[in-house]
Amino acid sequence: MTARDVKKVVLAYSGGLDTSVILKWLQTTYGCEVVTFTADLGQGEELEPARRKAEQAGVREIFIEDLRETFVRDFVFPMFRANALYEGQYLLGTSIARPLIAQRQIEIAEMTGADAVAHGATGKGNDQVRFELAYYALKPDVKVIAPWRVWDLTSRTKLLAFAEAHQIPIAKDKRGEAPFSVDANLLHSSSEGKILEDPAVEPDESVFQRTISPEQAPDRPTVISIDFERGDPVAIDGTRMSPATLLTRLNALGRENGIGRLDLVENRFVGMKSRGVYETPGGTILLAAHRGIESITLDREAAHLKDQLMPRYAELIYNGFWFSPERRMLQALIDESQQSVTGQVRLKLYKGNVIVIGRESPHSLYSMKVVTFEEDEGAYDQVDAQGFIKLNALRLRLGAMAGRRGGTL
Amino acid sequence: MTARDVKKVVLAYSGGLDTSVILKWLQTTYGCEVVTFTADLGQGEELEPARRKAEQAGVREIFIEDLRETFVRDFVFPMFRANALYEGQYLLGTSIARPLIAQRQIEIAEMTGADAVAHGATGKGNDQVRFELAYYALKPDVKVIAPWRVWDLTSRTKLLAFAEAHQIPIAKDKRGEAPFSVDANLLHSSSEGKILEDPAVEPDESVFQRTISPEQAPDRPTVISIDFERGDPVAIDGTRMSPATLLTRLNALGRENGIGRLDLVENRFVGMKSRGVYETPGGTILLAAHRGIESITLDREAAHLKDQLMPRYAELIYNGFWFSPERRMLQALIDESQQSVTGQVRLKLYKGNVIVIGRESPHSLYSMKVVTFEEDEGAYDQVDAQGFIKLNALRLRLGAMAGRRGGTL
Amino acid sequence: MTARDVKKVVLAYSGGLDTSVILKWLQTTYGCEVVTFTADLGQGEELEPARRKAEQAGVREIFIEDLRETFVRDFVFPMFRANALYEGQYLLGTSIARPLIAQRQIEIAEMTGADAVAHGATGKGNDQVRFELAYYALKPDVKVIAPWRVWDLTSRTKLLAFAEAHQIPIAKDKRGEAPFSVDANLLHSSSEGKILEDPAVEPDESVFQRTISPEQAPDRPTVISIDFERGDPVAIDGTRMSPATLLTRLNALGRENGIGRLDLVENRFVGMKSRGVYETPGGTILLAAHRGIESITLDREAAHLKDQLMPRYAELIYNGFWFSPERRMLQALIDESQQSVTGQVRLKLYKGNVIVIGRESPHSLYSMKVVTFEEDEGAYDQVDAQGFIKLNALRLRLGAMAGRRGGTL
Amino acid sequence: MTARDVKKVVLAYSGGLDTSVILKWLQTTYGCEVVTFTADLGQGEELEPARRKAEQAGVREIFIEDLRETFVRDFVFPMFRANALYEGQYLLGTSIARPLIAQRQIEIAEMTGADAVAHGATGKGNDQVRFELAYYALKPDVKVIAPWRVWDLTSRTKLLAFAEAHQIPIAKDKRGEAPFSVDANLLHSSSEGKILEDPAVEPDESVFQRTISPEQAPDRPTVISIDFERGDPVAIDGTRMSPATLLTRLNALGRENGIGRLDLVENRFVGMKSRGVYETPGGTILLAAHRGIESITLDREAAHLKDQLMPRYAELIYNGFWFSPERRMLQALIDESQQSVTGQVRLKLYKGNVIVIGRESPHSLYSMKVVTFEEDEGAYDQVDAQGFIKLNALRLRLGAMAGRRGGTL
Repeated sequence: MTARDVKKVVLAYSGGLDTSVILKWLQTTYGCEVVTFTADLGQGEELEPARRKAEQAGVREIFIEDLRETFVRDFVFPMFRANALYEGQYLLGTSIARPLIAQRQIEIAEMTGADAVAHGATGKGNDQVRFELAYYALKPDVKVIAPWRVWDLTSRTKLLAFAEAHQIPIAKDKRGEAPFSVDANLLHSSSEGKILEDPAVEPDESVFQRTISPEQAPDRPTVISIDFERGDPVAIDGTRMSPATLLTRLNALGRENGIGRLDLVENRFVGMKSRGVYETPGGTILLAAHRGIESITLDREAAHLKDQLMPRYAELIYNGFWFSPERRMLQALIDESQQSVTGQVRLKLYKGNVIVIGRESPHSLYSMKVVTFEEDEGAYDQVDAQGFIKLNALRLRLGAMAGRRGGTL
Repeated sequence: MTARDVKKVVLAYSGGLDTSVILKWLQTTYGCEVVTFTADLGQGEELEPARRKAEQAGVREIFIEDLRETFVRDFVFPMFRANALYEGQYLLGTSIARPLIAQRQIEIAEMTGADAVAHGATGKGNDQVRFELAYYALKPDVKVIAPWRVWDLTSRTKLLAFAEAHQIPIAKDKRGEAPFSVDANLLHSSSEGKILEDPAVEPDESVFQRTISPEQAPDRPTVISIDFERGDPVAIDGTRMSPATLLTRLNALGRENGIGRLDLVENRFVGMKSRGVYETPGGTILLAAHRGIESITLDREAAHLKDQLMPRYAELIYNGFWFSPERRMLQALIDESQQSVTGQVRLKLYKGNVIVIGRESPHSLYSMKVVTFEEDEGAYDQVDAQGFIKLNALRLRLGAMAGRRGGTL
Repeated sequence: MTARDVKKVVLAYSGGLDTSVILKWLQTTYGCEVVTFTADLGQGEELEPARRKAEQAGVREIFIEDLRETFVRDFVFPMFRANALYEGQYLLGTSIARPLIAQRQIEIAEMTGADAVAHGATGKGNDQVRFELAYYALKPDVKVIAPWRVWDLTSRTKLLAFAEAHQIPIAKDKRGEAPFSVDANLLHSSSEGKILEDPAVEPDESVFQRTISPEQAPDRPTVISIDFERGDPVAIDGTRMSPATLLTRLNALGRENGIGRLDLVENRFVGMKSRGVYETPGGTILLAAHRGIESITLDREAAHLKDQLMPRYAELIYNGFWFSPERRMLQALIDESQQSVTGQVRLKLYKGNVIVIGRESPHSLYSMKVVTFEEDEGAYDQVDAQGFIKLNALRLRLGAMAGRRGGTL
Repeated sequence: MTARDVKKVVLAYSGGLDTSVILKWLQTTYGCEVVTFTADLGQGEELEPARRKAEQAGVREIFIEDLRETFVRDFVFPMFRANALYEGQYLLGTSIARPLIAQRQIEIAEMTGADAVAHGATGKGNDQVRFELAYYALKPDVKVIAPWRVWDLTSRTKLLAFAEAHQIPIAKDKRGEAPFSVDANLLHSSSEGKILEDPAVEPDESVFQRTISPEQAPDRPTVISIDFERGDPVAIDGTRMSPATLLTRLNALGRENGIGRLDLVENRFVGMKSRGVYETPGGTILLAAHRGIESITLDREAAHLKDQLMPRYAELIYNGFWFSPERRMLQALIDESQQSVTGQVRLKLYKGNVIVIGRESPHSLYSMKVVTFEEDEGAYDQVDAQGFIKLNALRLRLGAMAGRRGGTL
């Protein structure tokens, strides 16, 4: 792709120094028009400065959108129906935001007649993959520009020099190197790089931006209830809320109670291990609550099938395959399972702990009558257990008779 | 199986009221000799009373064994190599003990020439299945007696009447009904039944026997290190310990810090949901530590393959298929993966939280040189990412060109 | 369940000797009314004799139904969307028919106010499980009578004696023992038992009822085309047909060309191995054709996901879990995948062989432009392959650098 | 990588025109020494011409090796233990040969002090990936040269011009374009490209090189027996043979009987679909035989676990991850399963059909006593089936009672 090839490019623009440099670099390198797209996904930054900076850079088509409800309703909640955890622990806060940004970039490209898109993700990370797989899946002929992979601004010094040369204002605190890199949205904040690169060293308290520490959290628990309908949370303490409002409220509850910190070494799709420090206060509560309501409303084999497929589903989202046939197929299976996942979970939040203390549902499959240690009036015939065991054991017995004792092969 | 058929039976005997009644009932019902087997799996009860009671009941062959090291080394640790969690949460403390008890019963049956075995598990639970599948897999022609499924002592009143009629001493606190049922071993304690049967009601603090509550735990964190070799923990804070000693130490650490409580509605193999309250203090720490050391020593695809198979492996153990070809096959796969899972993890224990704060290993696959945000001296070529993404996207692009935008089908 | 408990029972009634004996035995044992249900699933027997015999036995509610279209459309075709093969080979011809029969029995029970259902499957086979799991899933309080498991007519002699004692006509050829047992429907015929019980001995040609042998098949191939729409076949050689008509036609084509025989030792759900001889002429053609059309219309990862889940799906159907949450979830995933599985496959049928010789589709994902050995005008950039390989190799390289050469662990 | 960087390169050299051009191109482009490695994997070509040509090109270190036994014993047989089929059909004949060639190249590089390796695979195919992943996994710092991705000999004309300019002899039949491309080894031949690129068109009979057509095969079946030991074939018709000898013999038997042809559209790892025509005569027989012996010697759940993991295992081999942790882990699981897969299978080969007609084993798990339709003397208690079914149905009944009839969710 030579400079001439690009007519108009839609840039995922935060308004920060890096994407401001990218904006200028795109204009100067490709001589093309740049459309900026800035989304509010709950990252907690004001968006108007981005508009002003884009205007100053001569951008004529500026898109600034509040996507928080879309983000939570169409991306976060479907993912939580799967109880998705990457590598057993990570709630995928960054991964799940990328497809939405990419989708809007492509929609804006279609609207504005742009032939290219650009993002500010680096060449070593997962985000470049997530952005670009989504771009290509949604608009297969789109031209993709990933400045960090191609330009020669390969050091902080060069970047700052470029900024100065092009009158891009540099905030005071951006002069020096940030001690680590941050990504944030309504679901989580992640911190990684630089001072966090040694996995043998505990992250400093200053790394955490979104939760107080368990030690600092109140000495008394907070008890809440969450209502679910068909797998999605709809109310806290009986008050119905929109998806983004609900997650925002959970975030506040999590923050106060020191909930949702994770210090993890994970495996990137591009092949290396990296260390991330995550804060997902509301999501951590939500996962526990969702598992809680599923525990009484979901059939055993439905739950086990979900559990077996979850790692694959989480891997797909982590790797950037949200807009793929296989993710859609798994989503169909997961959504099918959630029809009766309705009811209420009560939870105790206390210094980093999320403890389920009660679950109720009009669709509960839990039968006290059957399970009871007391007389059950014939709901369950204990004699059946013998036949059940005998036939489950038959192949093992035949194996043992053939000399393969204890299930040896 | 008629009464005549049984010559000699090996009973899993705790010395408590229930198995004492079973002992007598076996003697009177089958007119057969009973061999008792009492194992120390770390349940925290003295075993000598069991010997005395068995002698009083006229038992001539009494086996009392300390199996704690065997239990932890050959059952608990292999299971933890898999990071096994049943239904995403349960550490399988009861499930993993049953195969060992069953195995010893069968070995004792072979030694003593017994043709039958008996256990005290009820007809509604999983334990009957776990015991009996193991019996049959190890000795396919064994006769199995499950008194709770066949006798007519179907109420507490009848049971006590039988005990009195046969001069079985009844401890004062056994006169009344226990408010819930308990199982314990070195890995965990479980409580279930009766006052715990309503999953909407929080368990009373009195249910917990093995951990103090997070609220009562110290206000300052405890920091420890655990060393691993080939997937198994071998030392705490630099001190090498035998498996059972190590787990005992972790239990103490967990207890003091309010770690390892779980209130769960789970799905039994026999088909109903049940509610269990579990305390697994040491195991909870161990799982976090094992995941921690794996995070820097295990290859990504090795880790993901393990994660994908873990739910099945956990299900097998929960359902009682420890002695089965499929468990052995999965174990071979898991053990193959652990060869370099060696190194040290540091953890902070604080009021219910287990927080990994550092990992180091001579076999680490984590490369600061590759992952760094700084210059990496060519360890990783960012240009490669473009080809990587382009080819990963190719099928999605071809799909979109064929009208299937966004990975639709 | 005592005799008194049953008021009215719906019997799956073929009109043959065995179910005629069952009919009478139900009447005499339970003193209850019997409703007969006889279905045409394409087994190739006349149904009117069943009506006459039922009338003679005093049955007042007789249901005789042609379910062939329902069978193929709602059971066979959904299953073939999954390319389901049990144990890599068996097309599940018997398994897939049972849920439909059971479903109709339950519907008839609801209509006629019956409280019980009965079937003629033996106590060693899979069919009893398939019938009864479906009964219970559809009507959880239904009473199930499985005469073969409970009566004392445990030998052929006793059965014939009972028949004679009750004036049940015995066809001449039923006097002696059948040399093997047969099940048939529009999808397949199975033969098993008795002379087929030794898996070391080849089945005699006389066993096969539905296909000529490859040796006897014509010396010249038959070429056909099958059109698919959204995963289901809709036309043969351009002629649209209803599901049952289409499968009937494929059966004729298969029969003539010696297609679809299978001699298999399989593993039953009840725990033992058994040997079955199957003939699935049309189904064998259909599987090849479906795989053929999928090969050009299905995305790679969609196809691989299906392949990975297929064994589990097939196992569910074999084991009798058609009416289960987990089968429905998998079906949702499979059906989601079939939206563009539309097009035409051409096949050569020749002496047992089904050879795909051409596939075409308006939704084809096969791109000659991309795949060509010739110049592709930039459709694919070979340089991308280097980055793709380098990043796929990165973790292996890092592993090798850490001393784990060749992917060792 | 600039030309200067390469000191000595080991080339996978067939002696044909293409790799002869590559040999010269490497010498002229990199000014480096080239070591040639030519392996006999059973492709059916003489190797001595390769030596002569290499000598003529001035190569001083020439390695020519007969690797047939290694290939079959250490690569083909382990893979067949898994019943590996890619996309349900392809026996992976090309895929499985690449890791061995790559492994020897790296070993030769170590021996000769070479710092680079080169192969003749194109930039669109899977083979480049398979070669290079193996290279990197075995020698992470190796330099890899893939001429087809980097040179400018991008057309046949240019290639021939280069050959002429460098006095590389061009066989007469290489002047024109080959009508398709061929790969061959002891396991299979593949043909693809050019005249085979349209998947709607049947391949011409002339494409097939290794099998006669079913139509031309003898009118009478050939019956053979194959003996297995621990999962691997060891004898045909009672005659023990080395691995390569045995596969050679099976190839001859397959060839004569028109066995092992496959016309397939498959999904490449690099992202596009391609059409291949494969001939795997011996392998096709072997797969059927191995499934046959497993059917009586393998436990049900062991077999099902293998079936569930097989697609992933096959995918790994297809994608080039033979030398990876995850392949080794799966191999450990598979090998664990094969300990008793010992015995004899008899097969009928007839015009493209491979029909198992008998299986016998000293470790058979098939019990005629248990399975029989006749009296079984108590080997199986039919009454057990009721309890087995009742408890398997329990969750479905509880679901139906909660309003979820028929396993709805």
